[in-house]
Amino acid sequence: MSDIISRKDLDFLLFDCLDVEKLTEHEYFNGHNRETFEAVIDTAIRIAREKFEPHAAKLDHDPPRFDGTQVQIIEEVAEAVDAFVEAGFLRAVFDVEQGGMQLPYSVAQAFMAVFYAANCSTAGYPLLTLAAANLLDTHATEDQKRLFLEPMLEGRFFGTMCLSEPQAGSSLTDITTVAEPIGDGRYKIRGNKMWISGGEHELSENIVHLVLAKIPGGPAGVKGISLFIVPRYRLGESGKSAESNDVELIGLNHKMGFRGTVNTALNFGENDDCVGWLVGEEHYGLRYMFHMMNEARVGVGLGATMLGHAGFQHSLKYARDRRQGRSITDKNPASEPVAIIEHADVRRMLLAQKAATEGALMLGLYCARLIDESVVVEAGGDLESGEETGLLLELLTPIAKAWPSEFCLEANKLAIQVMGGYGYSSEYPVERLYRDNRLNAIHEGTNGIQALDLLGRKVTMKNGAALQALLGRVNATIAEAKERPELVETAKSLEVACGQAASATMALTAAAMEGKVDLFLANASVYLEMLGHVVIAWMWLMQAVVAHDQLAGDVDEEREAFLRGKLQACQYFFRWELPKVKRQSEFLGTLDDTTLSMKAEWF
Amino acid sequence: MSDIISRKDLDFLLFDCLDVEKLTEHEYFNGHNRETFEAVIDTAIRIAREKFEPHAAKLDHDPPRFDGTQVQIIEEVAEAVDAFVEAGFLRAVFDVEQGGMQLPYSVAQAFMAVFYAANCSTAGYPLLTLAAANLLDTHATEDQKRLFLEPMLEGRFFGTMCLSEPQAGSSLTDITTVAEPIGDGRYKIRGNKMWISGGEHELSENIVHLVLAKIPGGPAGVKGISLFIVPRYRLGESGKSAESNDVELIGLNHKMGFRGTVNTALNFGENDDCVGWLVGEEHYGLRYMFHMMNEARVGVGLGATMLGHAGFQHSLKYARDRRQGRSITDKNPASEPVAIIEHADVRRMLLAQKAATEGALMLGLYCARLIDESVVVEAGGDLESGEETGLLLELLTPIAKAWPSEFCLEANKLAIQVMGGYGYSSEYPVERLYRDNRLNAIHEGTNGIQALDLLGRKVTMKNGAALQALLGRVNATIAEAKERPELVETAKSLEVACGQAASATMALTAAAMEGKVDLFLANASVYLEMLGHVVIAWMWLMQAVVAHDQLAGDVDEEREAFLRGKLQACQYFFRWELPKVKRQSEFLGTLDDTTLSMKAEWF
Repeated sequence: MSDIISRKDLDFLLFDCLDVEKLTEHEYFNGHNRETFEAVIDTAIRIAREKFEPHAAKLDHDPPRFDGTQVQIIEEVAEAVDAFVEAGFLRAVFDVEQGGMQLPYSVAQAFMAVFYAANCSTAGYPLLTLAAANLLDTHATEDQKRLFLEPMLEGRFFGTMCLSEPQAGSSLTDITTVAEPIGDGRYKIRGNKMWISGGEHELSENIVHLVLAKIPGGPAGVKGISLFIVPRYRLGESGKSAESNDVELIGLNHKMGFRGTVNTALNFGENDDCVGWLVGEEHYGLRYMFHMMNEARVGVGLGATMLGHAGFQHSLKYARDRRQGRSITDKNPASEPVAIIEHADVRRMLLAQKAATEGALMLGLYCARLIDESVVVEAGGDLESGEETGLLLELLTPIAKAWPSEFCLEANKLAIQVMGGYGYSSEYPVERLYRDNRLNAIHEGTNGIQALDLLGRKVTMKNGAALQALLGRVNATIAEAKERPELVETAKSLEVACGQAASATMALTAAAMEGKVDLFLANASVYLEMLGHVVIAWMWLMQAVVAHDQLAGDVDEEREAFLRGKLQACQYFFRWELPKVKRQSEFLGTLDDTTLSMKAEWF
Repeated sequence: MSDIISRKDLDFLLFDCLDVEKLTEHEYFNGHNRETFEAVIDTAIRIAREKFEPHAAKLDHDPPRFDGTQVQIIEEVAEAVDAFVEAGFLRAVFDVEQGGMQLPYSVAQAFMAVFYAANCSTAGYPLLTLAAANLLDTHATEDQKRLFLEPMLEGRFFGTMCLSEPQAGSSLTDITTVAEPIGDGRYKIRGNKMWISGGEHELSENIVHLVLAKIPGGPAGVKGISLFIVPRYRLGESGKSAESNDVELIGLNHKMGFRGTVNTALNFGENDDCVGWLVGEEHYGLRYMFHMMNEARVGVGLGATMLGHAGFQHSLKYARDRRQGRSITDKNPASEPVAIIEHADVRRMLLAQKAATEGALMLGLYCARLIDESVVVEAGGDLESGEETGLLLELLTPIAKAWPSEFCLEANKLAIQVMGGYGYSSEYPVERLYRDNRLNAIHEGTNGIQALDLLGRKVTMKNGAALQALLGRVNATIAEAKERPELVETAKSLEVACGQAASATMALTAAAMEGKVDLFLANASVYLEMLGHVVIAWMWLMQAVVAHDQLAGDVDEEREAFLRGKLQACQYFFRWELPKVKRQSEFLGTLDDTTLSMKAEWF
């Protein structure tokens, strides 16, 4: 595991940069301190090392398969999930009175990060269950919680999210699954669902599907979507599962990566005997789902980040060990080959990985920290930042999902490149990480949809209040950095980039106000990348401030090297990546219509 | 096959843009005309459709495996290769007196392109053989040709290239395979070779390994490398193969993609009984190999291009067929979903694929056309461009290899994204194409090595004569485009980009002249990308000129749509991609030392 998780970096981000310990000043979290946080992460690393990582390659090579009767999954998966449950991770963010740890979400994200890096496929099962459990905890009735949530938190029932359908992937408007009321808050469910992760297996007694469906007579489109609990098996007298609830496996989807997380097409109610329980009110399903989805999107971004992080660690170790070639100025073939980390182009590829993955990890944890602030506010705590927390989180979510799934995939690509032919072979894990990571730009809302969400919804909401809040915080960091002479130039670069991003935003919103909605949104993907770069640069400037101040203190040699590495990675991002913002801003300002004016028949 | 090859595009590039038919004015090619060229491509498409494409997915899923005695490969591969040989493709570029077709290399590249797109893994076997055959044709003795080349051209012997060793991947200086002379131009070979494609199989009677090794007492480093013919089996009396030549399979390398081309680690002479024949003179091996390697590099770039091209065609078809979502301005959920090609972001992803793959295909064919010009000159033909042809080809080769393997891989990534979850599943071929293409940045010299070759060798050779020649030709196209009012703006953009590229080159070479070799080469990868963008923009401007002129003539509706698509893809490249040159030029001008000043222990 030392190969795939930089514990030093995790601690630096959590405790030094984000000051997660400060959360314990609030009543809700005051049962904790840095030691309890670290103990949780220690446990996660131990379990990930012992139970998750060892079978990652085996599971990829020998993924779940349907034997005609059951979905078979190598037994190491069940053992790993059991260890996860036994350690209490499923209940980590739940209240103490629910048997939970009442842990901050930021610490929970940190331990999840460990599992993502170790084996994202196996981690998928408990994490899907956790997401479903969180949703039920917020929106289900007490009865529903007793019947479904409690067995999930005990690890006896697993959860899924059933949104997509074969004919309607990203377009939830067009789902056709139907829910007919049969009384007592129960409904008969009928329809097909596609791309359902964890949709069928024998890892748990039962599977709790959270299904989006339409109740006949409801409003058209997304406003007529409701959410249902649909167990794989009916619940027996004792609450344990008994006969089938008419949820049938149509088939498994075989994928390029994430192969260990079984992915299914499911049929609900083919024999007209599938019963679901309405969650909350009719027609509010999408709203409930999106409450969960936003956290899931931050989670997807974190997963992408950690696949990139693991690839970075592997290729870094390889680059230190592998001796090949000589310095460009050394023309003597008799001299000893050097470690390839000495070659500038290899360092470029390592720095690019470091800059992308550590910047993105900071963003994932920053978002989690915002969620914690909401929790404090909800629990009655007093927080200056209370109002803007929610806005910021909404704005950052599409970035936190899409940016890492683009640039940490790029990091995985570079990890392969550093390792050459070895990186491309299944002897090393980096090719698997690359395949796994390719999914993250697709699921939980494609990156194209994130871009539309960011520009079309989040940037414009409340007259741009969220973007104002973001720029306010970025400017605060810039001001802080400017107090340090060594960081003035860096801070100014970010200031300039913020101005460029703001001016592109104004040009685009002006077009929207003139009714040119098509032009406003046509290049939203470029906008997301641009604002994403600004945000990641901000994440690096925050890290640079902390690294700078620690360097001024009394640090040993090893710590000094770590901190200098942080400053150098920050410099890399600011010199190699941030300048892209200028061109993107200029481009967006032209309201380019190349994609709009292209005709389908011209291809 | 209509799905994976745009024949219309191939014809447009070959005949309209590159005027390949003009080659038939020269004596060497005057047995041909457009009809014979088209007939060859027709045959290639037929064989690729019937024999190559159908088993591509099966071969990926069921790759070559070692059963303890032999390497087993699904039988469709042998059938496909047989059909390739029978159609005469192995001899296509050979002289008529050798039984060849005396076909221009540009037409040969066009038919190879078809096989790459259909099934790059199976195509690997004949193409490796062809590359080895070309080398022997140029450098082997008549005896060697009779013993080895002729059976290769008959498809009875296959070829390989054995350069890398386990301890020395990119660093050929450090190879340790030894060749001890035993008289008669024969040598005992001893050593291990790694990453040998086609290194062991039962597809042919014999395998002709072309092996780099060092003769004891020779100069150190690459200047002491010689080239040997090392057959898998000894040749019997009749020239047919008999007992083993002590070349043993150590193991198969299992890879993320290109899984159907068996890749091996080989041991030569473990029992001190492996005999090789010296090719040409002692110590000139690397020079001979590089003669072949340069064509191989253009071939790798073309392979990368065609994987991107095939992915583009698949995702384009999907985008036309798949109905999902509505126009951004259509808020009525009751309206019918539109084909996803109507969404701006999908069109962006299709245009990006089109711009990258059709630009790169033009470059691959342009390089082949340059090779044809050398052939004409060698055959005694008179060509105005004779002198600069070789220089240009040398300069363009690293770009033609590296740019497509970067940006057509990106195209494959986008093909997956267009198709969403379906693209990520093995139900469709785009995920396989993406996996296959990831190899191309690694083999035949990593892209990092291409960048060093470009900036450190090609740009500076003969006082920059190659770059001057390139800019001269680009300027000629710019001048031609400027005569067309609709293309003036586009032409000027390229003119500006050329200036930016030239100024970065001057800043870098100035550093080199001051002895700052490290700084000169530290950011060579950025330089390659920058000059690559200029070159691809040039390829697009040439296409735009032709499309513009054809549009002014009498064209039917379908042709008009095709030509408008060309102009729009050109516009896409110029607006979305070319402006990157400015930032890259500015960055290179700063002689940034971020990667150099990073220390290994800071990571």
